[in-house]
Amino acid sequence: MNNFQFCSPTEFVFGKDTEMQAGTYIKKHGGTKVLLHYGGSSAERSGLLGRVRQSLTEAGIPFAELGGVQPNPHDTLVYQGIELCRSEKIDFILAVGGGSVIDSSKAIAMGVPYSGDFWDFYSGKAEIAAALPVGTILTIAAAGSEGSGDSVITKTADGLKRGTGSDLIRPRFSILNPALTCTLPAYQTACGATDIMAHVFERYFTTTAEVEITDRLCEAVLLTMVRETPRVIAQPDNYDARANIMWAGTVAHTNICGVGRAQDWNSHMIEHELSALYDCAHGAGLAVIMPAWMEYVCPHGVMRFAQMAVRVWGCQMNFAHPESTAREGIMRFRRFLKSIGMPVNFAELGAKESDIPYLVEKTGIGTGRTGGFVSLGADDIAAIYRIAANAQA
Amino acid sequence: MNNFQFCSPTEFVFGKDTEMQAGTYIKKHGGTKVLLHYGGSSAERSGLLGRVRQSLTEAGIPFAELGGVQPNPHDTLVYQGIELCRSEKIDFILAVGGGSVIDSSKAIAMGVPYSGDFWDFYSGKAEIAAALPVGTILTIAAAGSEGSGDSVITKTADGLKRGTGSDLIRPRFSILNPALTCTLPAYQTACGATDIMAHVFERYFTTTAEVEITDRLCEAVLLTMVRETPRVIAQPDNYDARANIMWAGTVAHTNICGVGRAQDWNSHMIEHELSALYDCAHGAGLAVIMPAWMEYVCPHGVMRFAQMAVRVWGCQMNFAHPESTAREGIMRFRRFLKSIGMPVNFAELGAKESDIPYLVEKTGIGTGRTGGFVSLGADDIAAIYRIAANAQA
Repeated sequence: MNNFQFCSPTEFVFGKDTEMQAGTYIKKHGGTKVLLHYGGSSAERSGLLGRVRQSLTEAGIPFAELGGVQPNPHDTLVYQGIELCRSEKIDFILAVGGGSVIDSSKAIAMGVPYSGDFWDFYSGKAEIAAALPVGTILTIAAAGSEGSGDSVITKTADGLKRGTGSDLIRPRFSILNPALTCTLPAYQTACGATDIMAHVFERYFTTTAEVEITDRLCEAVLLTMVRETPRVIAQPDNYDARANIMWAGTVAHTNICGVGRAQDWNSHMIEHELSALYDCAHGAGLAVIMPAWMEYVCPHGVMRFAQMAVRVWGCQMNFAHPESTAREGIMRFRRFLKSIGMPVNFAELGAKESDIPYLVEKTGIGTGRTGGFVSLGADDIAAIYRIAANAQA
Repeated sequence: MNNFQFCSPTEFVFGKDTEMQAGTYIKKHGGTKVLLHYGGSSAERSGLLGRVRQSLTEAGIPFAELGGVQPNPHDTLVYQGIELCRSEKIDFILAVGGGSVIDSSKAIAMGVPYSGDFWDFYSGKAEIAAALPVGTILTIAAAGSEGSGDSVITKTADGLKRGTGSDLIRPRFSILNPALTCTLPAYQTACGATDIMAHVFERYFTTTAEVEITDRLCEAVLLTMVRETPRVIAQPDNYDARANIMWAGTVAHTNICGVGRAQDWNSHMIEHELSALYDCAHGAGLAVIMPAWMEYVCPHGVMRFAQMAVRVWGCQMNFAHPESTAREGIMRFRRFLKSIGMPVNFAELGAKESDIPYLVEKTGIGTGRTGGFVSLGADDIAAIYRIAANAQA
């Protein structure tokens, strides 16, 4: 196991009706004037925003509002949010939504105290040194941003999708009410589940030997997702299954499953170009890319893929031919994704094989290499896109 | 799943040589004058205390010292520590040791700002409202106190062993260097491993339905312990196996495995009277009590015990007779404990069956009942002591 530092100070408030405590928790964490940041109209229609406004008002906390966050959140709204926070002297940001709203909130939070362009943090030009506190009310189990120090933003001008991270942008509190996710369409639910599983797999495939505890924690989250996801697709109102998925999604990405081990993250990087170009859901892009990545890198880690096949997918180990077990596990993953309604190739996603050279170029990899499990160059990434383009479950 | 609130803000600093960062982390967390609190002579002889003093001195942090914490830490030293902190105007406590030292440090931390007797927090007379910050350098994987808000202290005058808890006494940082545990005797290592597994089982056996994610996380820790404990007994210097156990021990008791579900804790309560009366190691007492408790309550939760048997101990499910699988799992647990050198009955522990009425009386249960999985009264507890007295692996 590698040396590591781990701190997940976020206060999680989990369960039914917890959104009514928003005002109380903002006060507890020192907020005196709030930016209420959210996405589209569903939070308004469902009455959630009304309940949150009521909670803030009852707590005597003044607030400004900025809605309109899109999936794959853009820099343009972040600049508006930074301006608004400065002009209104806001000292706390409350994100009401999913990963996009939370990531946008984190970008605003780091941009307010910074004299330069907030994009510097995403382009790698600057490191986050300060940020406004952020709280969240989560409406979809997916990105894990409610418990992570990560944020991903897309630059509108050139479609670049880039991430940054710091413990300084971990939310101070996150309110998780699984009931809020019961009205999600099946497709969004499945996209979220795929994203959660991908967060675990990015950590699971490692070159670090002897990491049984984090292996087992990763498998715990995956086994939960394998059991609970088909249940919520079949029974959208199943509170307990929604609750298990919601907590699994948080555990998947605080990094408690990933400490002390090399992590990969190539699938996320390769997927980001798909959702940036086609504006598809991140989870749908991952459903197409991740099994393709697995097929391509499998020969570099046959026994690790066999472990996944046996422990997560319940395959019988073929001791004479471990690679057949490894490949059976990958096949089961793709079939699982198809069974929950996810696309498994470019056509189902709305992507084009002829765009592959452009997609590879946009990754910005050039002549470099990247990835913590198997180090890949531009040719490898093109090969993975080709596998993804033509995959069948 | 039940509603819950969860916050584990402790900063974990894990890996080789991390104890040299003690001074840096105390400064980061605002400490300006430190109580260095520790146990016996092993930390001195190993050079650990010397390195810690050096780290504090290099960081320019003045400190007072209070050694002499015993296993099953007593109130008498806590009173001394409180006096010392007040007279020396100490604002940070650094625990160097295992669960006993950390629990003693937490007791001092809550006692300093409290005008009454610190025992009020343990007797249930008062709730913790403030505490000095505590940091830890852990020397044994066992109690999980390095990441928990719990503390257990024994009252010297009458041998009462009682616990208390609050997020206010969660350590600000915990330094975990698995190499420090490589010199532990096999018996202490096994006691620690038993304690870790018991912390999980207390949470695992629940009446709350539909808690797959926390079930799986519990099983992840248990599977790790089943694999790694025999390895460190056979190879005390195996750093990676020590590292897996150390992180498992922390994860077992931050409560991330126990949120949203009823927990039991009767085995701990029943064991506390053994270690209070015979001054045996807490882990050794648990090795005798926990399988006995399992045998006694098994009929109340056959399918849950069968789940443990299959998922943790690798038993084949007997679908015609689930209870035979359930009981096979309990038997395997006891055999596992014996295989790592733990006592499995009163004689091996140094306890006497004739003391059972006295032990039951000391639990203070009277005519009451306690326990979150199966509610037990005095007669049940006596029956469990009798099973424990005569058990064979």
